[in-house]
Amino acid sequence: MELQFSKRVTQEDFQGEFIDVILKAAADPSLTSFAGGLPNPQSFPVEAVKEAANKVFENFGYRALQYNAAEGLLPLREKICQRYKEQMDLDYTPDEIVITTGSQQALDIISGVMLDEGDEIVLENPTYLAALQVFHHYMPKALTVDLTDTGINTDQLAAVMEKHDPTLMYIIPNFQNPTGLTYTEETRVKMAEIMKGKNTLIIEDNPYGELRFAGKAGHSMAYFLPEQTILNGTFSKIVAPGMRVGWVATKNKELLEKFAVYKSSVDLHTSILDQMIINQYLEDNDVNAQVEVAKEIYKNNAELMMAAMEKYMPKGVTFTKPEGGMFLWVTLPEGLKAVDVQFKAVEKGVVVLAGDPFYEYDHGGRTMRVNYSNSTPEQIEQGVKAFAEAVIELM
Amino acid sequence: MELQFSKRVTQEDFQGEFIDVILKAAADPSLTSFAGGLPNPQSFPVEAVKEAANKVFENFGYRALQYNAAEGLLPLREKICQRYKEQMDLDYTPDEIVITTGSQQALDIISGVMLDEGDEIVLENPTYLAALQVFHHYMPKALTVDLTDTGINTDQLAAVMEKHDPTLMYIIPNFQNPTGLTYTEETRVKMAEIMKGKNTLIIEDNPYGELRFAGKAGHSMAYFLPEQTILNGTFSKIVAPGMRVGWVATKNKELLEKFAVYKSSVDLHTSILDQMIINQYLEDNDVNAQVEVAKEIYKNNAELMMAAMEKYMPKGVTFTKPEGGMFLWVTLPEGLKAVDVQFKAVEKGVVVLAGDPFYEYDHGGRTMRVNYSNSTPEQIEQGVKAFAEAVIELM
Repeated sequence: MELQFSKRVTQEDFQGEFIDVILKAAADPSLTSFAGGLPNPQSFPVEAVKEAANKVFENFGYRALQYNAAEGLLPLREKICQRYKEQMDLDYTPDEIVITTGSQQALDIISGVMLDEGDEIVLENPTYLAALQVFHHYMPKALTVDLTDTGINTDQLAAVMEKHDPTLMYIIPNFQNPTGLTYTEETRVKMAEIMKGKNTLIIEDNPYGELRFAGKAGHSMAYFLPEQTILNGTFSKIVAPGMRVGWVATKNKELLEKFAVYKSSVDLHTSILDQMIINQYLEDNDVNAQVEVAKEIYKNNAELMMAAMEKYMPKGVTFTKPEGGMFLWVTLPEGLKAVDVQFKAVEKGVVVLAGDPFYEYDHGGRTMRVNYSNSTPEQIEQGVKAFAEAVIELM
Repeated sequence: MELQFSKRVTQEDFQGEFIDVILKAAADPSLTSFAGGLPNPQSFPVEAVKEAANKVFENFGYRALQYNAAEGLLPLREKICQRYKEQMDLDYTPDEIVITTGSQQALDIISGVMLDEGDEIVLENPTYLAALQVFHHYMPKALTVDLTDTGINTDQLAAVMEKHDPTLMYIIPNFQNPTGLTYTEETRVKMAEIMKGKNTLIIEDNPYGELRFAGKAGHSMAYFLPEQTILNGTFSKIVAPGMRVGWVATKNKELLEKFAVYKSSVDLHTSILDQMIINQYLEDNDVNAQVEVAKEIYKNNAELMMAAMEKYMPKGVTFTKPEGGMFLWVTLPEGLKAVDVQFKAVEKGVVVLAGDPFYEYDHGGRTMRVNYSNSTPEQIEQGVKAFAEAVIELM
């Protein structure tokens, strides 16, 4: 007897070993980990969520436990629309929102709705590891476009779009994962001009958008190209991730309809209890004040980490200066390999992730992702010191 | 601009219109609906779940809201193993269990791990509508095997397995959806003999297994062919469906590993809050006593419905006599079409679902699915009467 696994799970996997590094680091209390991307639990409104849960059971009883609609809870979708209006000057109606089981699920469903094997997808280079993973399951051809300090390289993008007719484009314009970079408004305007009228659906992922602690937000692609863009959002970074509640928003009716039908086939609907709890929490609390708690922590941690990098790292090391989000992106001096530094750093008690799994093609490079959201000031100071020692030893 | 949707969502869809019937029926309070498959909310332990939720927040605080492992909560997986031992004489260890976002998600993930376009899958004829939907997204070739009063037709199955090398087989041996039929032990033994050593993974779906109110359970395929079977389970019918917590169990290590990696790519993990609440509920309550509440309701409803069918239906109408679960399966007299009866019955105020969407190929037939789990005795009496009037009018 030999089971017949699909091509999609037997193709080459260059990311699994790096995910193992993250997981092992998280499980080993003797290590300081800058490898993952966990929100800081000090920012979780545990008491208020508990109260919201009680209210849900009291007010809604069995309805919090019964099957529900694939599109998700209407009052929650209404609140998402209000936030889009307030935060991003975007007009959506609740029927343009579908709730998902975290925003990771949105990537899987969009891929299912859009991608046939061999279809083209434009990706930032580098991009979010778990997005690469889910896209790979649909076996598209990846077209990568480099990131610069001002966001995606629009010259490269224009050249790619001239030659190709991609089905999808996936971007994270705010505090990108892994680089921490943010697109300037000029880049956004240029990108919109390039993409306008093309048969390419733009997935704009924005998990960190509200975690801005410096600078000014630019416009969403949904502002320029509403019918051609689908926005992915999540409560993971503004309330808490463990409940797995995210959403998509789009003005494209055909896409919306196909998305909702597909959603119902993958898990019927997202936990209605979790949706109701988050809805009640948003109704009874000032979520903006709560987001400030997270921003304050991340701002302090980012500043501590940048200061420690300046203090300990040798001259040839550079890093991005984030305006929000959870990550720094470090470039090592020429001649060093990120994977070597990763292993050397583990020996010294700190886990920093080599950039390799964030690249579709360019492995063996000298970039590393450093997470600061979930560490104490002491861990940041000592961890960066150990990281710097590892770098210097290998120079 | 024209988006480029995938083949899987643009292929012919013969089920959507029937799902619309179910949804519209559920939304219209003037109709009695036997169309859906909702558990009876009287069986939901609302107060006990509320208490469990409070205890989770008190005992675990932020850990109930943080990211977690793809495999799911260990104590919950331990309890699932205990129940397999007690209820089905099956030995599993917690590392052989992966928690899923409802058992619908398990079907999607297994399909993703196993199916390439054109691969063969053996299906009961008819089978679960939403399983057909999710399988269709992977564009396999369906090999259908008829159901008889003793379960799957083993002669047909043997003939199919002689000619083909299917990747998957999907079965619901207990109180099958839609037919309500249960495989006899003899059928199970024969089926195991036929499937033994074949390169076919058997998905045994068992959402209703614990809702037995008559007869005696047969052995699971996992008992005969542990390495070749994956079991799908769910808390939807023994606790409540709205939290979307299910699981898979298999002894096949390679499958387990691929399943868990794939699971992490589709939604990272299932709501840890919901997993903790169900775990706490199981720890503090006698879930078997709670299942008795549901069984009592379903037994009474099934008996009332069978009595009403005997009373009102003309002679040519036959129906299955379920030993558990939620459905009767009605066969109309020759010459009638189920879809015609469906529309006539709606005019008379009752929604009964034509069997068509449960068949991969054989549409336009004369079978109908009738749900009894979520109706009052009055609705059952009046609804069956109206259903019978519709049948008689069309004869």
